[in-house]
Amino acid sequence: MGKVTTGATISLDGYIAGPGESGFDLLFQWYGNGEVEIPPRLRISAASAALVKPEWDDTGALIVGRHLFDMTNAWGGRHPMDVTTVVLTHQRPDDRPDDDDNFVFVTDGIEAAVAKAKELAGDKNVAVNGGQMARQCLEAGLLDEVGVELVPVVLGGGKTLFGELGTAPVQFDGPIAVVEGTGVTHLRYRVKK
Amino acid sequence: MGKVTTGATISLDGYIAGPGESGFDLLFQWYGNGEVEIPPRLRISAASAALVKPEWDDTGALIVGRHLFDMTNAWGGRHPMDVTTVVLTHQRPDDRPDDDDNFVFVTDGIEAAVAKAKELAGDKNVAVNGGQMARQCLEAGLLDEVGVELVPVVLGGGKTLFGELGTAPVQFDGPIAVVEGTGVTHLRYRVKK
Repeated sequence: MGKVTTGATISLDGYIAGPGESGFDLLFQWYGNGEVEIPPRLRISAASAALVKPEWDDTGALIVGRHLFDMTNAWGGRHPMDVTTVVLTHQRPDDRPDDDDNFVFVTDGIEAAVAKAKELAGDKNVAVNGGQMARQCLEAGLLDEVGVELVPVVLGGGKTLFGELGTAPVQFDGPIAVVEGTGVTHLRYRVKK
Repeated sequence: MGKVTTGATISLDGYIAGPGESGFDLLFQWYGNGEVEIPPRLRISAASAALVKPEWDDTGALIVGRHLFDMTNAWGGRHPMDVTTVVLTHQRPDDRPDDDDNFVFVTDGIEAAVAKAKELAGDKNVAVNGGQMARQCLEAGLLDEVGVELVPVVLGGGKTLFGELGTAPVQFDGPIAVVEGTGVTHLRYRVKK
């Protein structure tokens, strides 16, 4: 059985997005400043790739919230990580009567979303995307690992990694990995259980 | 001429203090979980000590705000780092008519405080303590380096490293050092100028 992981690129002052959804150009410089191409669009450093490429290859299913699904216009039809994406939502979209290999909709909470994603992932891992989903997983005790891509910029405000967490403080073991990329430090932690 | 540095122990979600000034027991575990004694009170890991002990030895003067000075009751008479401490305040305390080797009071702003501290530090560095002072230094372009002691805990809310920074975003070079202590990752960054 795989792990449930989440991760985010964060600023030195802890923000995954700056004020008014700003700062993404600075946070995500590391997605384009390297020499290793990862389709469809990334060019990351060899050091970053050596860590994150296997992580991505080991991901068997994703969980996202409805907000991200709508914002990205369903990634044009399929998530760029090329796996089935479980979308947690209050109500199934009108224009999608059936689940398919691209998107599966879950309307009865984070536990059900994680269970469905684990079933889809098989032996591989489940990756949880977005602060709200990550927060719900952590609060429900369903999260195993968190990855932080720490970027040397101070944004001065915005959205934090897990938002206002109901169960804080939460302690972690690690870092179980520290890798220096170009303009980013990758850190991996295990939730203390 | 020395550098002007600041540093803070922060949670994975970017907080230097949890909600309602909580979380210090978790943030500062690394001050007591090691085998190297640093008087008067610290016992830190050998890896942490190898980095921070020289940094502390190279510190020639401190800058703090009045709030920290009052909160700590003037550290009982002298700062534990055993250097002269410049206190930036709107009004000199009534019970301290004169500056001395322990405390020097500056009432005309952060630039004057940094100038005074540099004069006192000579060839050594000036360390700026406290989020408000660090923020003012960074906004005024007076900060050279920032150190982050990243601790694997999520606090879910509280005070952030530089607070609401007027000049954000600010970019840094580095990390120029990454050291893994016990329960803490030390990262050092240079302000991009």
